Amino acid sequence: MSNLHSFAIGIATKNTKDEIIEAFYPAPRLSPNQEICDAISEVFPAVSEGASTPVIDSDTARALANKLKNIADIDLSAELNLLQSGHTNLVVCAIAEDCPPKSIAEVFLKLHLLSHRLVLPHSINLDGMFGLLKNLAWTNKGPIELDELPAAQVAARLNGEFLSVDSVDKFPCMTNYVVPSGIRIADTARVRLGAYIGAGTTVMHEGFVNFNAGTQGPAMIEGRISAGVLVGANSDLGGGCSTMGTLSGGGKEIISVGEHCLIGANAGIGFPLADGCIVEAGLYVTAGTKVQVLDTAGNLVATKKALELSKQSDLLFRRNSINGAVECVPLKQSISLNEELHAHN
Amino acid sequence: MSNLHSFAIGIATKNTKDEIIEAFYPAPRLSPNQEICDAISEVFPAVSEGASTPVIDSDTARALANKLKNIADIDLSAELNLLQSGHTNLVVCAIAEDCPPKSIAEVFLKLHLLSHRLVLPHSINLDGMFGLLKNLAWTNKGPIELDELPAAQVAARLNGEFLSVDSVDKFPCMTNYVVPSGIRIADTARVRLGAYIGAGTTVMHEGFVNFNAGTQGPAMIEGRISAGVLVGANSDLGGGCSTMGTLSGGGKEIISVGEHCLIGANAGIGFPLADGCIVEAGLYVTAGTKVQVLDTAGNLVATKKALELSKQSDLLFRRNSINGAVECVPLKQSISLNEELHAHN
Amino acid sequence: MSNLHSFAIGIATKNTKDEIIEAFYPAPRLSPNQEICDAISEVFPAVSEGASTPVIDSDTARALANKLKNIADIDLSAELNLLQSGHTNLVVCAIAEDCPPKSIAEVFLKLHLLSHRLVLPHSINLDGMFGLLKNLAWTNKGPIELDELPAAQVAARLNGEFLSVDSVDKFPCMTNYVVPSGIRIADTARVRLGAYIGAGTTVMHEGFVNFNAGTQGPAMIEGRISAGVLVGANSDLGGGCSTMGTLSGGGKEIISVGEHCLIGANAGIGFPLADGCIVEAGLYVTAGTKVQVLDTAGNLVATKKALELSKQSDLLFRRNSINGAVECVPLKQSISLNEELHAHN
Repeated sequence: MSNLHSFAIGIATKNTKDEIIEAFYPAPRLSPNQEICDAISEVFPAVSEGASTPVIDSDTARALANKLKNIADIDLSAELNLLQSGHTNLVVCAIAEDCPPKSIAEVFLKLHLLSHRLVLPHSINLDGMFGLLKNLAWTNKGPIELDELPAAQVAARLNGEFLSVDSVDKFPCMTNYVVPSGIRIADTARVRLGAYIGAGTTVMHEGFVNFNAGTQGPAMIEGRISAGVLVGANSDLGGGCSTMGTLSGGGKEIISVGEHCLIGANAGIGFPLADGCIVEAGLYVTAGTKVQVLDTAGNLVATKKALELSKQSDLLFRRNSINGAVECVPLKQSISLNEELHAHN
Repeated sequence: MSNLHSFAIGIATKNTKDEIIEAFYPAPRLSPNQEICDAISEVFPAVSEGASTPVIDSDTARALANKLKNIADIDLSAELNLLQSGHTNLVVCAIAEDCPPKSIAEVFLKLHLLSHRLVLPHSINLDGMFGLLKNLAWTNKGPIELDELPAAQVAARLNGEFLSVDSVDKFPCMTNYVVPSGIRIADTARVRLGAYIGAGTTVMHEGFVNFNAGTQGPAMIEGRISAGVLVGANSDLGGGCSTMGTLSGGGKEIISVGEHCLIGANAGIGFPLADGCIVEAGLYVTAGTKVQVLDTAGNLVATKKALELSKQSDLLFRRNSINGAVECVPLKQSISLNEELHAHN
Repeated sequence: MSNLHSFAIGIATKNTKDEIIEAFYPAPRLSPNQEICDAISEVFPAVSEGASTPVIDSDTARALANKLKNIADIDLSAELNLLQSGHTNLVVCAIAEDCPPKSIAEVFLKLHLLSHRLVLPHSINLDGMFGLLKNLAWTNKGPIELDELPAAQVAARLNGEFLSVDSVDKFPCMTNYVVPSGIRIADTARVRLGAYIGAGTTVMHEGFVNFNAGTQGPAMIEGRISAGVLVGANSDLGGGCSTMGTLSGGGKEIISVGEHCLIGANAGIGFPLADGCIVEAGLYVTAGTKVQVLDTAGNLVATKKALELSKQSDLLFRRNSINGAVECVPLKQSISLNEELHAHN
């Protein structure tokens, strides 16, 4: 068969109606090699037509394990470990082409690909995922369907147990699925599965990263990276700062932050920020904000909408504290991250 | 007897001094019908004088169950389930009149009534509740009295267990008591029991809802709804935005947000916002902020304090980025929420 | 021997390589008295040269317990309780002098000293601590080394258990180690071990306190106290407000907040704020912000950088909403905290 887009073996959770409500893939693979693709298509002939596969029975697990065992030059121990575990909710998810996902198992695989840093934000088809994902209670006993929750809460209390409902959402926390290398996330409740967290990134307590969004390298994130926003390497998002998303609130521009940028605490942007730019603490610059463009001598050279400045690097955006005008001035020196904070991630 | 204000059967937690420190009511009832009221007053004659009832013994549970079993036309299975469970910390809480609460069990019932959407914020008497509620350690093993915590922490460590203290507060998380229908709450640590979350509301990670506050219908909440603040249907509170509360910080005005409003990211209001208004991202408008009122042609027609504009709908509040003035201009089109985000709650 | 700086007996967690990765000390002691110092130096002669001690075996535990038992006039029951427990990961950490820490056990003791309010922020040597501390997965089963996490996650799933990774960080939550008296912390994920939380302080959901930072008395904290920042008694940090830290983001000034201050919601400071000052909601004043200084009659008397005003008390900082200028005016009356909110901590 032709190559697969991606492939993973995982463990699913089912609701009481025997439907998959989420899936955990310890070792997702992008573009698995020909031998793996062949093994999968022999066991699951329907995959070549784009279908992902369901929960598998023990015979199928054994058959697939036998095929994979014979592939000598690739480390498939993670997959074999699962196939030989005898777990009853094993899923094999194979994506033939990067189309809109058709099942929860597939959406979860794509979110894993992002958080394992195998694909960049915006590079994978997630169309219609909101409609597929279930709104679940993510509890200290695992995910529970919302209509099964009240009975579970009473049962826990009657048994003297404590059922903690940590989130009611379609997306779980990333770190319960994968912690990619070289990162810190102080409060993991604030990073969704599907976030792409670059090596060397620290997400502090006030930081937040949505799915299909993230950082491309070392970064200090104490602000919010909305869905779809990508931050370049060596940038610093100050405490409580905002990057405007396009899912709600009226933002239409897809926002990005360049490399070596600093968005100050409680500041925000509604336009793409080029490399080496600084937005002063407390200043929110939307796409339509009229900005006084100054030269290095402080002379006004133009008045532009912020969006028109989105390709210009090394600018400092500030609000003049005497006359209230939003200004930008050329910057000589870009910011650098604190080595000690990031060297030991 | 005359009708009760409200009634619920629950499971309480006690401290080592045998005092109730919190209570969970799976099915609180507002204005229970005459048959239920009669059953309760027969088993608990003191209720008619306003007294709530204590933890009940098994004989009393059986007596009440026998009365309730005979009420044919109402589904009392939740109550009967508890009464027949044999649990030793069952509480029956009946509130005759909506007076200031006199016990922890009563405060918890009133907070449940709010979060079950049986009563609106501001419509129930909570006077003196702060003094009644205990400051507790809310842990992964349930609530613990603070003076019993150090011993529990040492004991857990010696047993090789992990005791996680998730909150030290008088109010617990709402979702450990009830998840009303049609909502999402990404980080449940940020919604207190006593919040009123309208159907169709999504509270994102940066959202927050205090007790006696909430949303009256569909809403996107990425900002903070302070105690006492009520948000109208179809409004959007942007990331990190603030609604000024009256409990601290000097705010005196009771704040509300109308329908179809948008408060931008990192913005804030210290005055009631009428229907269809927008506050630009990053702009904080307090009650006393002097606002330049412009007409549709951009001409200055008046300068008013924001509080004087609190009944005027369809206004856009912004800060002029050239001259620094806070302005408001009439709006033609109000905001609408992203259907895909809210359709599947 | 000469007096010790500090001393504690604790329970450590080790990784699979038998290395200590964190330690919990229920009863740390600053400046233990001579008898305790003598007992320790007899059992651990190397301590006098500054060395802290390792995990101890049961013979050593017994020897130390026998010495401590004979000290009649001090309550050493917490220490004796641990020494007699037979726990295999007991650590005795003694710090001879306040030098840069040399081990994880020592760093944890110093962070405990701060959070037990035995030493104030800035008063203890933490140099090099970032390099010593390990970045760990803090889970609902306790801390786990990151390279041991993937296997633990698969194992939990295969066993039908749920492993929740609550934080990936070098610092744990303070409240899993100590809850000092008289405080509330609504969301404990936002207060790191090493924070100093004064009695009477309430940290709301949006509040945050880093290590080596905190409040010196009663306070309402709904904003962020960055590393190194100390807040005076009876001050109020509004929701989402920011105090600029020196670890990242370019801040060079060490920030502090005086007594009876109010920093409004979504406001921020990049300079030390003197007693009795108010910063208006939504206004960020950095060290270099040019401020129009007005007299009580509203006349402009000077234009100063905010940093030059850092010793002047009873000022209100605001942005003029007509002309956009940042101004400060003398204040007659300072703020007071809401008694009902704080009286019952």
